[in-house]
Amino acid sequence: MNSSAGTTLVNGQPSESISVHDRGFQFGDGLFETLAVSHGTPLLWEKHMQRLWHGAKRLGITTPSERLLWDESKQLCHAAERGVLKIILTRGISHRGYAPVAEASPTRTVSLSAWPDYPAQHRDHGVTVQFCRTMIARNRDLAGLKHLNRLEQVLARAELSKDCAEGLLLDEQGNAIEGTMTNVFTVSQGILATPDLSHGGVAGVMRGLVLERAAAISISCQVLTLKQQDILNAEEVFLTNSLIGLWPVCRIDSRKFPVGRITQRIQEAIRDACCAD
Amino acid sequence: MNSSAGTTLVNGQPSESISVHDRGFQFGDGLFETLAVSHGTPLLWEKHMQRLWHGAKRLGITTPSERLLWDESKQLCHAAERGVLKIILTRGISHRGYAPVAEASPTRTVSLSAWPDYPAQHRDHGVTVQFCRTMIARNRDLAGLKHLNRLEQVLARAELSKDCAEGLLLDEQGNAIEGTMTNVFTVSQGILATPDLSHGGVAGVMRGLVLERAAAISISCQVLTLKQQDILNAEEVFLTNSLIGLWPVCRIDSRKFPVGRITQRIQEAIRDACCAD
Repeated sequence: MNSSAGTTLVNGQPSESISVHDRGFQFGDGLFETLAVSHGTPLLWEKHMQRLWHGAKRLGITTPSERLLWDESKQLCHAAERGVLKIILTRGISHRGYAPVAEASPTRTVSLSAWPDYPAQHRDHGVTVQFCRTMIARNRDLAGLKHLNRLEQVLARAELSKDCAEGLLLDEQGNAIEGTMTNVFTVSQGILATPDLSHGGVAGVMRGLVLERAAAISISCQVLTLKQQDILNAEEVFLTNSLIGLWPVCRIDSRKFPVGRITQRIQEAIRDACCAD
Repeated sequence: MNSSAGTTLVNGQPSESISVHDRGFQFGDGLFETLAVSHGTPLLWEKHMQRLWHGAKRLGITTPSERLLWDESKQLCHAAERGVLKIILTRGISHRGYAPVAEASPTRTVSLSAWPDYPAQHRDHGVTVQFCRTMIARNRDLAGLKHLNRLEQVLARAELSKDCAEGLLLDEQGNAIEGTMTNVFTVSQGILATPDLSHGGVAGVMRGLVLERAAAISISCQVLTLKQQDILNAEEVFLTNSLIGLWPVCRIDSRKFPVGRITQRIQEAIRDACCAD
């Protein structure tokens, strides 16, 4: 763990606390981004900022200057060989009641924490996952956004058996949407597929990168409705997020999966955007 | 506004801030209660505590002693003629990541704020409401709970036209669920009805009291699936919560409603549990 890990800036000032009246605390009225830090630099910065700006626009939250966020992030990260940078942007402080206040000034927090020491085996040989009982609600207004209303993920995460590194969530219609902290991809007959997120889930930055890089190496990818059975029937399955990069799935319940050739090619194609071991 | 309004206790200590690492801020991982305060006492205390305990059990959050919460609430309220008491209970502070930490100690905040001066007209002559475009997601795991994931209510509240005191939310199947801050009841042919909340919405304390008190004065009440059209077709419509008590609805779009006899009888039946003007 780097010596600077654990530090937080709240609106640019070193602090570990926010107002109890902040709408992030009161209502989960905000957004967040989680970035891998490598050699003092947050990875995929532009893509994370694009998503944050897009989310802020949809929720009607005023954005700070990107330069300011960059400077604050670099201030925390510059000495970190590896780490995790978390940025939270909320609608700010207001009086009691749901109504947003026009003059509210958004709150931004930037925190650096230690790099999680995921076993290299997860990346190289894959992980066991399970389907969760907790469902992900269908909500077109919030779908795709990395907002602060994360109780579903908390409940799903609490369900996981010890041997499972991740859990997959379905919606009420039985569509597979995502993992608790990852997006999911399948490979069937050479075609890559990942769930449509127009009614739920977080449109992960690494998911976006996989879609881009797959196209660049001529692997077709479809964004579509995927049922639980489609995942179990797939030839290869893998998970992505900005910290783990790509983890192959080697088992779901009794179904075993190989670490297949397309999974390996995608893993290679995104290597530069992942933290090296 | 009472001189003690605006004060907050965080885990029993006067403070206006919480840790940036609190799971309430990070994930909305917690619950809340909003109570009317009259002559130094929070109203319907037992019912609010029952709901809070029920929610904590469902989310797996450890509860403080009720006596402690009562003492802290009284400490803030004792001198307030009227006010609003808000209690928040979160899973506490933990490291990054959704997984709840077994040893996390829950955070409780108790805040007193000024009584909102709702116009007496709202209670006596009714309010205009609208149906919101924002939908309420169907989620059996969180349905009924007054949890901290409130982005839907924030977005819906932001939609309201100036002349509307409240907005009604539908789910994806077109079922009317609740208002942004209230529960809704209809009266048709002498029968009271209110939406089933097993897939979404907050089971309001005042809603529960209305169900009890209606039964006590021999007014039948059904908890069932209500469509938008069922509300528009009703003879009387009213809204409830712990602060407003009961507001008749006098208009939805072009449809006008009278302040009917059953609405008035219910209003009378819950009067002792509401803040007097």
